[in-house]
Amino acid sequence: MSPPAVRGDNPDSMDQWRTAIVRSEASAIWIHGHDVTELMRQVSFADTVFLLHRGRLPDERERKLIDAILTSVADHGPGAPSCAAARLVASGNRQSISAAIAAGILAVGDEHGGAGERCMTMIADGLADAQHRSVSIEEAAAAAVEHRIEAGERVPGLGHRVHRTVDPRVEVLFSLARDGNEEGAGVRFMRAVHAAACERIRPLPMNIDGALAAVLFDLGFPAEAGKFIFIIGRVAGLTAEVAEEYAREKPMRVQIPVQYDGQEPR
Amino acid sequence: MSPPAVRGDNPDSMDQWRTAIVRSEASAIWIHGHDVTELMRQVSFADTVFLLHRGRLPDERERKLIDAILTSVADHGPGAPSCAAARLVASGNRQSISAAIAAGILAVGDEHGGAGERCMTMIADGLADAQHRSVSIEEAAAAAVEHRIEAGERVPGLGHRVHRTVDPRVEVLFSLARDGNEEGAGVRFMRAVHAAACERIRPLPMNIDGALAAVLFDLGFPAEAGKFIFIIGRVAGLTAEVAEEYAREKPMRVQIPVQYDGQEPR
Amino acid sequence: MSPPAVRGDNPDSMDQWRTAIVRSEASAIWIHGHDVTELMRQVSFADTVFLLHRGRLPDERERKLIDAILTSVADHGPGAPSCAAARLVASGNRQSISAAIAAGILAVGDEHGGAGERCMTMIADGLADAQHRSVSIEEAAAAAVEHRIEAGERVPGLGHRVHRTVDPRVEVLFSLARDGNEEGAGVRFMRAVHAAACERIRPLPMNIDGALAAVLFDLGFPAEAGKFIFIIGRVAGLTAEVAEEYAREKPMRVQIPVQYDGQEPR
Amino acid sequence: MSPPAVRGDNPDSMDQWRTAIVRSEASAIWIHGHDVTELMRQVSFADTVFLLHRGRLPDERERKLIDAILTSVADHGPGAPSCAAARLVASGNRQSISAAIAAGILAVGDEHGGAGERCMTMIADGLADAQHRSVSIEEAAAAAVEHRIEAGERVPGLGHRVHRTVDPRVEVLFSLARDGNEEGAGVRFMRAVHAAACERIRPLPMNIDGALAAVLFDLGFPAEAGKFIFIIGRVAGLTAEVAEEYAREKPMRVQIPVQYDGQEPR
Repeated sequence: MSPPAVRGDNPDSMDQWRTAIVRSEASAIWIHGHDVTELMRQVSFADTVFLLHRGRLPDERERKLIDAILTSVADHGPGAPSCAAARLVASGNRQSISAAIAAGILAVGDEHGGAGERCMTMIADGLADAQHRSVSIEEAAAAAVEHRIEAGERVPGLGHRVHRTVDPRVEVLFSLARDGNEEGAGVRFMRAVHAAACERIRPLPMNIDGALAAVLFDLGFPAEAGKFIFIIGRVAGLTAEVAEEYAREKPMRVQIPVQYDGQEPR
Repeated sequence: MSPPAVRGDNPDSMDQWRTAIVRSEASAIWIHGHDVTELMRQVSFADTVFLLHRGRLPDERERKLIDAILTSVADHGPGAPSCAAARLVASGNRQSISAAIAAGILAVGDEHGGAGERCMTMIADGLADAQHRSVSIEEAAAAAVEHRIEAGERVPGLGHRVHRTVDPRVEVLFSLARDGNEEGAGVRFMRAVHAAACERIRPLPMNIDGALAAVLFDLGFPAEAGKFIFIIGRVAGLTAEVAEEYAREKPMRVQIPVQYDGQEPR
Repeated sequence: MSPPAVRGDNPDSMDQWRTAIVRSEASAIWIHGHDVTELMRQVSFADTVFLLHRGRLPDERERKLIDAILTSVADHGPGAPSCAAARLVASGNRQSISAAIAAGILAVGDEHGGAGERCMTMIADGLADAQHRSVSIEEAAAAAVEHRIEAGERVPGLGHRVHRTVDPRVEVLFSLARDGNEEGAGVRFMRAVHAAACERIRPLPMNIDGALAAVLFDLGFPAEAGKFIFIIGRVAGLTAEVAEEYAREKPMRVQIPVQYDGQEPR
Repeated sequence: MSPPAVRGDNPDSMDQWRTAIVRSEASAIWIHGHDVTELMRQVSFADTVFLLHRGRLPDERERKLIDAILTSVADHGPGAPSCAAARLVASGNRQSISAAIAAGILAVGDEHGGAGERCMTMIADGLADAQHRSVSIEEAAAAAVEHRIEAGERVPGLGHRVHRTVDPRVEVLFSLARDGNEEGAGVRFMRAVHAAACERIRPLPMNIDGALAAVLFDLGFPAEAGKFIFIIGRVAGLTAEVAEEYAREKPMRVQIPVQYDGQEPR
C-alpha cells in the first residue's frame, strides 16, 4: 500500500508516454513495424484488428474467424441495451454523433456483450484445473458449472432472451473454427460446460458470447479481448442504428411509460 | 415551432421502435435481408460495415476501399486526443473497458477525426455549385477556398500536425480508388481544393480526412459517414491502446504539469 | 487556414497546462484564491458552483437563484432521455456507476436540457438588436420570433411535452429573481418572446429552460452556462435514478418493442 | 442461472418503468412527495441532493456536511484524470459540452474518486467484525489493515500524490461532522485504520476520500454513495474547467510526448 506511483515527479513537465503499437513520423506511420500504406494496399480491416492486438498479421484461418466474430455481433437490432442507449442519446442530442456511439458502448458490461470476457476467464481457469487435477475437460467443466450453482452465479455464455432454444451463430462459428476435424480446447470446454448446465440446470442454448470466447481463447487472445472484439464489431452496428435514427426519427421521439409508486404528495 | 413531436401519446405504453436494418427472431437474424450466418461464412467485416450503412453488399473495389480507409485511421499513436483520452480514463478507472473506449470516441469531433464530414459537405456543395454555375471543378474549388478565407474558417481536409509536408496515406488511398485511369468527382474536387489552398494560403498537405472524404463521397456515402467510418476504424486502435495501458502502466500514472495563473490566495 | 496550432513543438515534452481556477499545493487548495477548507466551513455548494464559474462568491440573492435553478432541473423522472439513457446503461453494465451517469449526460443536447444555451444567445442577440435599432424589448422579441418562423426553426424555451399549458417552475423562478419590483432585461425579453410566440404560433407555455436562461442571463452568465448549470443540477437526479435502478431492477430488464420494416429475407 | 429476466415478454409493447423518486404531471412535479416549486423556494441544492438519495430532507447538520463534502471534491485542478480527460475531449471535440463532461466522469473509478465507495465497504465490514468478534474498533481496524497487507491490496482512503503529509480537507470535515464532542463510528474506524497503517506500513495521510466515506457512513448512506456524491461535486469543477478550456485554449492544443519502443519497421 503506497500513494499512487508516478513515473516522474516533476510538476513542471510530463514524462513521455510509451507505446509499442504505433510509430508515427513526418513521412510514415507503422503499426507493429508494418508501414500503414502497405497495410492499406494489402490487408483487410480484420487483419489490422488482429495486428493491433497481437503484434503480427493473422493467417487465413485466423482472419476468417475475426471477420466472422465481428460480423456475428455487429448488430442485433435497436432493442439491445447498447443500440437503445445510442438511439436515446441521439434522440436528445443531435449535435454529436460521438456522444450517441459512446453511450452505446457504455451499455456494454458483464450483462451485455461482456459475457465473452468472463467465459474466457472460466475457460482458462477450467483448463488449468483439468491439467492440475489430471481430470478430463468434461469433469473440469462440470466442476465449473457446479461451482457457479453453489455460488449462486450465472454460468456465462449460456442463455439468450431472443434465441431461447438455439443461437444460430454458434455452430456456424464453431464450424469455421474447426481445423480439419479438430476442435480447440476452448471450444471443447465450452461444449462441455453447455452440456453440464443443460443437465444440472435446464436446457439452455450456448450464446454467441460463449462461442466467440471459446474461439478467441483457442486463437490465443487474453480474456479482455472478449470485450474488446465485441465492442469493435458492435460499433459498426451502432453507427448504422444512429444513422437510421437521424434519418427516420424526430428528436425527443421516445416516450417511456412510467409508473410512480413512491411517497404521496404532502 | 411546436412542442417536441411524439409518435404516441399514451403515457402507459410505448410505441414500437422501427428499424429497416436488423430483423431478429428466435432462430435467425438478418441484416438488410441477409442471414447473419451466411454473412459469417461468406463475407468480411468490411462487407458487413458497407451492408449496414448502404443496404447492400459492396463489390470488390468498394470493399477494398472500405478496408483501406478503416485501416488508415485505425491508430495514430497515444498522442491523438482520442487515444490520449482513452488512456487517461483507463488510468483513473480500471473497472470499465467500455468507459475508456467511450471516452476515446468522445474526443472525435470537428477538430479531430471529424474533418471528413465537413469535407464531404464541402465537396457536395462545391460540385453542386460547379453544375449550377456551369464552371469547372477547379473554379468551384477555388471559390470554396476563397469563401472560407473570407469567412476566417479553416479549409477542412488540409494540414496535419505530424505529417507537415505529405500525409503518406493520401495517394495510396487515391490510387486504390482509381477505376482504370478515372478519378471520381470527389477526388478531383479535393485535389483542386488542395491546389487552390496551396496557392492562396501556403503549401499544405492534404490529410487522410480529406482523402477519405473524397473517396467516400465518390462511393455514394452521405456526409455523416465521414465521422461514422472514422469512428469504426479508430475503435480498433483504441481497444489496442487501452489493452496496452492496462498491461504496461500503473493506474494514475499520468502527471500533467500545471501552472496556476489566477487570483492570489486571499 | 493553418495546421492546428500547438503551443509547444517539442515532441519530447509537454508544455504546462494553465488554469486560473484551482491552485493545489502540498498543504492547501484554493479555488479562485479562496482556501477550500474555508469554503467547506463557510459556504454552500451553490456558492462553490458560482465561484467556480464566476471567480467570486455570490451575494444572497444570487446564491438563492443558483440553488433554485439547480433544484428545478435536478430530476424529471425516468422518462427524460438523460435518465432513460442512464438507466439503460445501468441495465447492461452494472460494473460502472460512472458509465451510467456519463450516458445520462450525453443525452443532454439542444433538444434536451440544451435549450437554455440557445435561449441565452437569443436573449443576448435580441437585446443587442433592441439597443442597436432603438426599439423596445417587445419589438425586438417579436422580430426574433418572426425570424425563427421564417427560418423554419423552433423558438427555444417554449413548449414541454408534459407541462403542456404551464410549466409550474417558471413563475416561481421569476418571482425569486425579482429584485424588489424590477425584472431583469433577460426575463422581460423572454416574457416578450413568449407573448409574441403565443400570438403568432399558438398558445405555448414557457418552459424551465427558457426561464433559467433569462435568469442566468440577468445574473451575467455567458450562454454556455445554460448547459453547464443544467448538467450540474441533472447529475444529482441521475445519481438517484441509477441508485434506484441498481436497488430495484434486474440487469437487462428493458425490453424495447421493435418492428422491422426493411428488406425481406432473401 | 437462467436467461436474463425480463418483466414482460411481449415484444410488441414495453412494461411501464417504475420509480419512487419523481412524480411528474401536467401541472406539478414532486420529488419524494415534495412539490418541486416548494423546494425551489425553500431549500438549497444540497438539500435536494440529500432528498433525492434519502427520501427526506436533511437536518441542518446533515445539510452542512453534504455542502462541505461537495465543495471539498469539486475541483483539484486540470491534472486530475477526470479534469484532464474532460479537457482533452474538449480539445478534439468543441461541438459537445456534454461529451467533455461525460469523459471527465468516465475517469472516475476505484483509482480516482472511487476510494470513498471502497472505504465505506471497509468501514461497514470492519464495524460488523468488531461487533461480531466483540473487539474494539481499534482491533477491527488493525485487522482490516493486516488483511489488506497480506492480500497485497491498497488500504483505501490513505495517501495522496499531492498532499503527501496531510490532506487539509480531512480534519475540517471531521470537525464539521462532530456532534458535540462525539465522533461517529465511521470516523473513529477510519482514524483507527489510519493509525494502524501508519504504524504497519509508513506514515501516510488520510485523504478526502477516506474522510468523506467515514462521514457519509455515519450519515447512513450506502457504500455506492461514496462515488455518487463525489461525481455530483466533481461535475461542478468539470464544467468550470471545460468552460476555461473553451475560453482560453485552441482546439488540438495538447501535444503528448510519445516514445515508441516496439518492433522496428520491417
